[in-house]
Amino acid sequence: MKFVQEEISIRTDKRSQMVDITDNVATLIGQTGITDGQVIAYCPHTTGAITINENADPDVIHDLLLTFDELFPKERQGYRHVEGNSDAHCKSSLVGTSEQVLIKEGRLVLGTWQGLYFCEFDGPRTRRVILQISGEV
Amino acid sequence: MKFVQEEISIRTDKRSQMVDITDNVATLIGQTGITDGQVIAYCPHTTGAITINENADPDVIHDLLLTFDELFPKERQGYRHVEGNSDAHCKSSLVGTSEQVLIKEGRLVLGTWQGLYFCEFDGPRTRRVILQISGEV
Amino acid sequence: MKFVQEEISIRTDKRSQMVDITDNVATLIGQTGITDGQVIAYCPHTTGAITINENADPDVIHDLLLTFDELFPKERQGYRHVEGNSDAHCKSSLVGTSEQVLIKEGRLVLGTWQGLYFCEFDGPRTRRVILQISGEV
Repeated sequence: MKFVQEEISIRTDKRSQMVDITDNVATLIGQTGITDGQVIAYCPHTTGAITINENADPDVIHDLLLTFDELFPKERQGYRHVEGNSDAHCKSSLVGTSEQVLIKEGRLVLGTWQGLYFCEFDGPRTRRVILQISGEV
Repeated sequence: MKFVQEEISIRTDKRSQMVDITDNVATLIGQTGITDGQVIAYCPHTTGAITINENADPDVIHDLLLTFDELFPKERQGYRHVEGNSDAHCKSSLVGTSEQVLIKEGRLVLGTWQGLYFCEFDGPRTRRVILQISGEV
Repeated sequence: MKFVQEEISIRTDKRSQMVDITDNVATLIGQTGITDGQVIAYCPHTTGAITINENADPDVIHDLLLTFDELFPKERQGYRHVEGNSDAHCKSSLVGTSEQVLIKEGRLVLGTWQGLYFCEFDGPRTRRVILQISGEV
């Protein structure tokens, strides 16, 4: 059983954006030598999130961000938080701060159309994603 | 420490549907002999999800699917994805592609009213759920 | 590799409420002696949830609960579940029944502004949070 913690740094350039981190994570897994186990991708920011969704047609990501913006408008009657980013905090809790993906024979067990994304909801900012890769070498 | 990966195949028969997989998962755990640890149920599809909710009154599942459909209508002004299932991709990211349940003394540590569900959001289709059971034998 | 399962008991006093359990979890981790690994916080209730969000400005929590209440009103045309808490079941599945946080050098790997919360959506009630702390001693 081996545990490795690594970090990815991401520079976002829009307020809302989804950044595909699948290749970064796959490369790090290869470096650990872990063959069977799991990787946890964790977002240490309260206005970001991690999700898994389609990485074939970029229009899917466009439509996800559009939907999130319509469900969580930036302004809402009754909001108190003075930073004006309560919408981003909501998206963070509903999309979720982490995802886990299984590892088999040294590879991510993702579906054919799946990619792993860091979600920026209050950018542009420099963000971190913490990865814990654990399993059998 | 033991790692076992298994797969369940599910045939859905509606566009939106929640399929209770608790018994399938409990049976597989029994076969592994793992007594303490956890199971990860992972959906490798970008228009499906995994969730935990009530398995006593089927009206709860009805009400969940009704709510998801109202929050994420099939059509939305501005959608670009030509497959016409962007609503299903949104539901997938918000409900989430995986859940984990603890195992104690060989049994799932679920609450009294909890069941584990595969969520179909763009059926009918044949779907897979990947299970990783890990822990002490 | 060590596995420890513990439970926290929480008494909520409102219908919707977020209870910061970060300190309780940190204390339990210290008692296990586990230095590297992860903690899973699991809610065994179908009208509660676990999330991670800001624990600096309490207005963020106010705004989260306000948003959840607006997206999931208590009554909705077509609801069948006779207990009248279908909104709470929806919030539970969308916020999610568990979160995991990494442990490094015996401490929770949380972002600067992050806290771990039990979410009550159908209180007041007495609730349980199950914690599984696993990793290297």
